[in-house]
Amino acid sequence: MSYELLETINSPQQLRALERKELEPLAVQLRQFILESVSQTGGHLSSNLGTVELTIALHYVFNTPEDRIVWDVGHQSYPHKILTGRREQMSGLRQYGGLSGFPKRSESAFDAFGTAHSSTSISAALGMAVASRNAGINRQHIAVIGDGAMSAGMAFEAMNNAGVTPDVNLLVILNDNDMSISPPVGALNHYLARLLSGQFYAAAKNMGRAVLQHMPPVLELARRFEEHAKGMIMPATLFEEFGFNYVGPIDGHDLSALLPTLQNLRELGGLQFLHVVTKKGQGYKLAEADPVLYHGPGKFDPEVGIQKSKVPAKPTFTQIFGQWLCDMAQADERLVGITPAMREGSGLVEFEKRFPKRYFDVGIAEQHAVTFAAGIACEGQKPVVAIYSTFLQRGYDQLIHDVALQNLDVTFALDRAGLVGADGATHAGNYDIAYLRCIPNMVIATPSDENETRLLLTTCYEYLGPAAVRYPRGSGRGSDIVAKLESVQIGKAVVRRQGKRLALLVFGTLLPDAAQVADELDFTLVDMRFVKPLDEETLLDLSKNHEGFVTIEEACIMGGAGSAVTETLNAQGVLMPVLQIGLADEFIDHGDQGLLRSKAGLDASGIRASIQRRFGDDISKVNAA
Amino acid sequence: MSYELLETINSPQQLRALERKELEPLAVQLRQFILESVSQTGGHLSSNLGTVELTIALHYVFNTPEDRIVWDVGHQSYPHKILTGRREQMSGLRQYGGLSGFPKRSESAFDAFGTAHSSTSISAALGMAVASRNAGINRQHIAVIGDGAMSAGMAFEAMNNAGVTPDVNLLVILNDNDMSISPPVGALNHYLARLLSGQFYAAAKNMGRAVLQHMPPVLELARRFEEHAKGMIMPATLFEEFGFNYVGPIDGHDLSALLPTLQNLRELGGLQFLHVVTKKGQGYKLAEADPVLYHGPGKFDPEVGIQKSKVPAKPTFTQIFGQWLCDMAQADERLVGITPAMREGSGLVEFEKRFPKRYFDVGIAEQHAVTFAAGIACEGQKPVVAIYSTFLQRGYDQLIHDVALQNLDVTFALDRAGLVGADGATHAGNYDIAYLRCIPNMVIATPSDENETRLLLTTCYEYLGPAAVRYPRGSGRGSDIVAKLESVQIGKAVVRRQGKRLALLVFGTLLPDAAQVADELDFTLVDMRFVKPLDEETLLDLSKNHEGFVTIEEACIMGGAGSAVTETLNAQGVLMPVLQIGLADEFIDHGDQGLLRSKAGLDASGIRASIQRRFGDDISKVNAA
Repeated sequence: MSYELLETINSPQQLRALERKELEPLAVQLRQFILESVSQTGGHLSSNLGTVELTIALHYVFNTPEDRIVWDVGHQSYPHKILTGRREQMSGLRQYGGLSGFPKRSESAFDAFGTAHSSTSISAALGMAVASRNAGINRQHIAVIGDGAMSAGMAFEAMNNAGVTPDVNLLVILNDNDMSISPPVGALNHYLARLLSGQFYAAAKNMGRAVLQHMPPVLELARRFEEHAKGMIMPATLFEEFGFNYVGPIDGHDLSALLPTLQNLRELGGLQFLHVVTKKGQGYKLAEADPVLYHGPGKFDPEVGIQKSKVPAKPTFTQIFGQWLCDMAQADERLVGITPAMREGSGLVEFEKRFPKRYFDVGIAEQHAVTFAAGIACEGQKPVVAIYSTFLQRGYDQLIHDVALQNLDVTFALDRAGLVGADGATHAGNYDIAYLRCIPNMVIATPSDENETRLLLTTCYEYLGPAAVRYPRGSGRGSDIVAKLESVQIGKAVVRRQGKRLALLVFGTLLPDAAQVADELDFTLVDMRFVKPLDEETLLDLSKNHEGFVTIEEACIMGGAGSAVTETLNAQGVLMPVLQIGLADEFIDHGDQGLLRSKAGLDASGIRASIQRRFGDDISKVNAA
Repeated sequence: MSYELLETINSPQQLRALERKELEPLAVQLRQFILESVSQTGGHLSSNLGTVELTIALHYVFNTPEDRIVWDVGHQSYPHKILTGRREQMSGLRQYGGLSGFPKRSESAFDAFGTAHSSTSISAALGMAVASRNAGINRQHIAVIGDGAMSAGMAFEAMNNAGVTPDVNLLVILNDNDMSISPPVGALNHYLARLLSGQFYAAAKNMGRAVLQHMPPVLELARRFEEHAKGMIMPATLFEEFGFNYVGPIDGHDLSALLPTLQNLRELGGLQFLHVVTKKGQGYKLAEADPVLYHGPGKFDPEVGIQKSKVPAKPTFTQIFGQWLCDMAQADERLVGITPAMREGSGLVEFEKRFPKRYFDVGIAEQHAVTFAAGIACEGQKPVVAIYSTFLQRGYDQLIHDVALQNLDVTFALDRAGLVGADGATHAGNYDIAYLRCIPNMVIATPSDENETRLLLTTCYEYLGPAAVRYPRGSGRGSDIVAKLESVQIGKAVVRRQGKRLALLVFGTLLPDAAQVADELDFTLVDMRFVKPLDEETLLDLSKNHEGFVTIEEACIMGGAGSAVTETLNAQGVLMPVLQIGLADEFIDHGDQGLLRSKAGLDASGIRASIQRRFGDDISKVNAA
């Protein structure tokens, strides 16, 4: 396919110079370009095929970047990136040094707000709208939000606040495709479905007219009734209850519907709510048929679609967790599994199938997920909250106030801990050790391989209190899995290798890299297993016959596991050189996980180099010995 | 007044044995008891006077503790405490070793869930309801939630999830008193007001009947219309949209309305929503007239009410902040002040009066508050988010993902940092240094007195990025305030005293205590001012002519400022004994702030004792010299 028209558009100004009739052909080319581009780089597909026409219409009607568009979650922003001068950079999408998979303020003036975590757009756009109002600037502020994201409490908070904020231009566009990453759940989605079915609105609108037609004498009454009903009974949609003018639903793939509607809304200003219906995967049959599979694929051939890989890959940590959850649920009927809208990502597909009554997808609602688990634990059942490290930040207060403070028996399975790769800084799982460690009652485990993950999950699950097990994105190095559900002693480290001079204290899956260095330089190697409680006894023992400690973790150094070690030494009055190896105090952009680890010095050669920098002389002595 | 009847009730079983007609006299005695008791201990008043009848009715109708009651926020739970066997302990309310001011699982089997932070009740009760369902136990689960708490996103998330959870007994009671701690804000409150005014419902219900009366011939049509309208237009209330059966509004002070309604709802089971209207301060004229003043008073004489204290007290840190905010707003028109429903608590009353267009109370909505601020900062204005340390935990992800990652210019004024006194563990401001320090781009300031607070607020405000200033609850020791808005160098400590052997590195308002010890034992004393960036240069200088460091902070030791010091020493390869003085790894119950500090070893004698334990010999040498 040729991209003749698309290639003339290097900015929305050029788009706006097109004739109206050129927009449909442009949409065809844009959609094709996305399919081709994403199939070559991997990335989000379904959602971007769904926003082609909406993106064209927005940039055609509004004066971007002067008017602000905030893309909620932002994984649907590829058409936006392509139309705002980044078409040629799409080949480097989500790769190191290349385009981010999300809107990013530092990437383009058209990215009014960086997004990635869900449901921030209305808050941000309202903030901008208030600032513009206060500065006397008349521009438009647009939040484009999916129906899944709309179900998060934060979106509700923003709507609630917007509804009483006078004189702001805020257009909320609900991109209703009846699918967040997992299929949507929650009462709001049922409500939207009812809106969509037309029953609700059409029935209300036609009512007065029906009375009127069949009963001419009561015409006047019916007319008054209709008015009355409209004013009193029919603030009608939930969104109007919040003070917005509700328009829709309209077909989000029909430019003839989108363009005039947006033009009208632009003229109107104020608080506007547009309900747009789109189809994820629109225009690519395979994605339309299975938008979940095509949500965030790797590379594939668009002609044949995503193929199941024939060589069985090493299991991911997510799969290890999913298998463990099923096994433990089989063994203990008190187990309950909870996910905030991440069934696939967190590995709960099989669990849902086998234990539907004990499976809870609570929607994009991390706050609720955690306290809901606390409630379940109060009744003596055993909730396991499967959540990404980065998303637990959303339920932080609930973890402190509802779970840890009451010492309730909730297990947190923290996926995507550490460097996450292509998703980048927004999804970083780097802070969990620091933000969990300071909370009393917490147990924190850092398994070093797949089987350790299984062991420590069982251990933390059996523990009658709040515990978190953190494990990384992707696959491990293929450790043997013991099928039996075994546990270990909480707070006890394992010395994997007895060596000299330095003891490498490893928290997590960098163990093999550390082992390589320990073998090479004859250091002691310890799999610490637990950040909290920390194995003080082993530390004190090791301090007696070593010259220094090296702590190693794929987490931020600040407040991390290495600091737990030094706090313990400080408390015990033990003076000992400690080298803390971990992530520096900076946000780390997207890129290949291995590459990022290596750049952060978190592989064998990086660990060796750090040790040499710090203990240079000692090491050469060891080598010479 | 005699409490003849009340004194016979030491458990809800005894309450349930009363005759119906005895309940009104009981309510009178209970209300009087609360007034008398709270006027002697201090505590929450208005809210508890408002829930007297509701509490009696709940325990009369439901089989507590088998049926679960979760009190949202929980500061309205005094009648509940009194009726569940804790009447005599009310004299020790909120005092060290005495009753908590909130429901607490360890305090009573009737306290089904510990609360204090807002809007957790529906999530917790739903969790319990699911657990009961799965265990085949038929009991009732009740969340009592105020209209303010209902506006938080978390409550919405729970409603959204409940609406699609089959076969659970969940009764949500909206205690609508049109007032959270600050006056309510947000579209939801407008909506509730409309429900209450009766317009909405009464109009809808009477409509068909009106048609019917005036137009006998169309009777049948009207009847069909009414049915049609009910089914189609009138899922009616927002709460019904979420799958609940909505009942109300009813008068929450009228036992004749409450009792049969609750009995009915008990029979019905399933998802029920009861809208109860109460009056904060009910039955005590002074509190009815000014429920904000009587929200959480200290001791007072009920006959004369709260008296303005004649001796001007030392200003609180909250007042210092409030004054600074007004002064800075006067000097810089870009300043915007944001509070999540804590106008009084955070000291924004005067600011709202003087700068109404730049004042934003966004409701109980910490997540939204932070991202809203981020949006404002995007447009070049300068938001100041005034928030309690403990409540910022609610906006943690937004601080990371929306503010810090984008390096946006948002200032966080963290009130109630450290030990908070009577509110206890739920409100602890102990974790902020640890949870903020690990986030890149953050600046964290810990002023040591009132004027330093002003200085560091100005400094952080002027800084073009995310910054937090933490200060404690209550008053300082009365430092002189410089009216001019001055700033200091970011990341630069101040050596307050040159001494020998040890350097005391103080982060915050424990400086005077540390100074006393430093003077006495001739140690060096440093006001560190900033946790981040940390003054490495000063640390390295000090390390050259001191034998040890003592870090002092009113914050958790784990991951705290002391760990920042040791991380820096580790990174620089400096071997130096460090004693970290701060809060141990445990939740600290309520009690007098000074007492709690002293028990935690955070006063001069505690600091001296810690130093002696760790550096015993050195100190005696210093003393002997």
